[in-house]
Amino acid sequence: MANKIYVGLLGLGTIGTGVARIIGGHQNKINQVVGQEVIIKTVLDRDIDKCKAFFGESVHCTDNFDDILNDEEISIIVELIGYVPAAKDYISKALAAGKHVVSANKDLVALHGKELVTLAKANKCDFLYEAAVAGGVPILRAITESFASDNIQKVMGIVNGTTNFMMTKMDKEGYSYDEALTLAQELGFAEKNPTSDVDGLDAARKMVILARLAFGTNDVTLDDVAVAGIRNVSINDIKLANRLGYKIKLIGTAEKIDDSVNVEVGPVFVPESHPLASVNNEMNAVFVAGEALGETMFYGAGAGELPTATAVVSDVMNIAKNILLGTTGNIFNEYEIETRIAKPEQVINPVFMRLEVTDRAGQFLELAKIFATAEVSFDKIIQEPLANGKAIIVIVTHPMSKAQENEIIQAMEDNDDMKLKVHFKVLEH
Amino acid sequence: MANKIYVGLLGLGTIGTGVARIIGGHQNKINQVVGQEVIIKTVLDRDIDKCKAFFGESVHCTDNFDDILNDEEISIIVELIGYVPAAKDYISKALAAGKHVVSANKDLVALHGKELVTLAKANKCDFLYEAAVAGGVPILRAITESFASDNIQKVMGIVNGTTNFMMTKMDKEGYSYDEALTLAQELGFAEKNPTSDVDGLDAARKMVILARLAFGTNDVTLDDVAVAGIRNVSINDIKLANRLGYKIKLIGTAEKIDDSVNVEVGPVFVPESHPLASVNNEMNAVFVAGEALGETMFYGAGAGELPTATAVVSDVMNIAKNILLGTTGNIFNEYEIETRIAKPEQVINPVFMRLEVTDRAGQFLELAKIFATAEVSFDKIIQEPLANGKAIIVIVTHPMSKAQENEIIQAMEDNDDMKLKVHFKVLEH
Repeated sequence: MANKIYVGLLGLGTIGTGVARIIGGHQNKINQVVGQEVIIKTVLDRDIDKCKAFFGESVHCTDNFDDILNDEEISIIVELIGYVPAAKDYISKALAAGKHVVSANKDLVALHGKELVTLAKANKCDFLYEAAVAGGVPILRAITESFASDNIQKVMGIVNGTTNFMMTKMDKEGYSYDEALTLAQELGFAEKNPTSDVDGLDAARKMVILARLAFGTNDVTLDDVAVAGIRNVSINDIKLANRLGYKIKLIGTAEKIDDSVNVEVGPVFVPESHPLASVNNEMNAVFVAGEALGETMFYGAGAGELPTATAVVSDVMNIAKNILLGTTGNIFNEYEIETRIAKPEQVINPVFMRLEVTDRAGQFLELAKIFATAEVSFDKIIQEPLANGKAIIVIVTHPMSKAQENEIIQAMEDNDDMKLKVHFKVLEH
Repeated sequence: MANKIYVGLLGLGTIGTGVARIIGGHQNKINQVVGQEVIIKTVLDRDIDKCKAFFGESVHCTDNFDDILNDEEISIIVELIGYVPAAKDYISKALAAGKHVVSANKDLVALHGKELVTLAKANKCDFLYEAAVAGGVPILRAITESFASDNIQKVMGIVNGTTNFMMTKMDKEGYSYDEALTLAQELGFAEKNPTSDVDGLDAARKMVILARLAFGTNDVTLDDVAVAGIRNVSINDIKLANRLGYKIKLIGTAEKIDDSVNVEVGPVFVPESHPLASVNNEMNAVFVAGEALGETMFYGAGAGELPTATAVVSDVMNIAKNILLGTTGNIFNEYEIETRIAKPEQVINPVFMRLEVTDRAGQFLELAKIFATAEVSFDKIIQEPLANGKAIIVIVTHPMSKAQENEIIQAMEDNDDMKLKVHFKVLEH
């Protein structure tokens, strides 16, 4: 056995330089905890000059993955490439060659996690990806270890920092959606093309990973997630929410319902007294409800160079210890149950609805009929006149199933004088 | 190797029955995660009839510890006795006999943790105690594993559920201290003799454990902790705090200051926007600040049968996996630095002071002189007349050291017309 643990780093972007900084800067503690020196030996990056400028002579910079794959001294590969096909190719080759892998790539894990875990197991390799979900929040380890003895019933989180930042600006400082997006882009929180964040796709990928680990339902895929983003959350809805005692947050939910799971992402009315309601700006938080453990929440930075890099390096150290103990390939959650996706009849929540109706006698009766037919009752109602002979009606329903909700939405669509502008889930507390 | 993992349970109180319920109730998941059946074989309790009534024939009930110690099949002992001398005796014997130990005993770990860890290491045994600090919050594992690659700067928490419950009742529902204590006792949150909770001793023990793990300063002891409880927190101070934008919480703090550590417990003014401010009722939360990871918070039930028992069983499962992998005795944090306790000159915070002064000309000048002499400036001041020819003066200072604070307190004591009623640390945010 080598008397040092050598690491190969794929990709020297923001997180990659963070990983190098932490391994360099916290060397004393890392070596003591692991029991051996952990060293970055080779870095793969297209820009070899940038790599050399960063590391000087201490690290071998290359643009050829084979330099890492064929180096027998390198036992751990850290994948920070991003681009899924390349990352998958590199990781597959690394695992097949008996190298352990740490990745921060949520897209990759959501899409190909099951396959890569199988490959890792077959090769007695470790494959860890704590940084893929809520970088600075050690939620995957908490779920797999601290909740190991419990039956998890629900995992619910603010797992996208960009949208949480935007909605905090809208809520606290009255920004419009567009202003909030522009600011997020200026600050580097949001991409030029913000689809992945604002349409909820990024959150959906993380919820797939969380659902698999929390429930052992390894066959949950992105296709099983009902996804809505924040594009249609207006400042008016935020004000209405506040008036009713709620904050609107983009929430990812993964919940067990009988022997099925429901996974969804969308704007949710969160009661002000709920711990998730006060998670602001770009922070992330994941709320876990266990049968025995009760309600737990994990809060921290969702992204950023150093928090994400810290999660990556903690994974590297975990693997390094396993290498020294000769126990790699044993980290995986062996708990698995059959994946059944909940039906619309099973998913039950109160719902917030904002409608525009023609302001005339009988309109409210029509509305009441629609709800009565669907056997849904109201919890709260606000009606206010608009300038144009229309009225706005805001409803918070008592809990109803998605099937009932769909029935109501359909009935409203069939009524020319009634326009459902938005409908958001309301979290019971 | 036995094809089952046998556990000996010491003490069948609330947590003990919870452990039995979880091991029984979540058997399927536990066996899958561990890879082998985990079974409670023998239970030590003075009340053998109660034990038999609970378990029936499935478990051997005994009042003789030797029945567990000398049973070679039993590899893990769960200590839930409470009483420190007995617990220490049993655990020492168990470790010396090569048995692994899980304990939920914070008093024991705070007092004898270092010695027991040394004994465990010498015998290649595991010794885990996640449940000893904030039962339902997996904070010890987070600190030792997820922060392994980071330098922790501060650990700060609401780690006593009883006092947090009482202060929530005082803050939200206007209870007096005595009313809140009576309610806590009625609900079983507080003991008949509430000293350990309300005087901050329970929190101090937990902070000692956290300080050792977070900083590797294994020689921190209870004597190093400055402890204040909540007996002198009045409803008036809570109202004043709210008026100034704060919540008063009993906060345990362990912080690195240069190469020293400061550990203290006391009522703290927490800014309303800080995540700890909204941790209410009997909930616990631990806030960790890392150099790279930034600010993280872990929130959950602090006590209670099932949350605490879940933490115990997760530790048992962790050890069971190590037994199967042949890697017991390797779980300990090898990171250690010399323990230096910070001097009063190094510990710097703003401070809230409430004084009663004789209401006459020149009094305020006296006060101003005291602060000027100590070179401390004011951030906020409120003065209000009282009925009896006295006035109340409330001051929030700019950050000052404990040495300066002590100087000011001494000067006030020397002044007959000035009475310092309370002084609490203010958390900067």
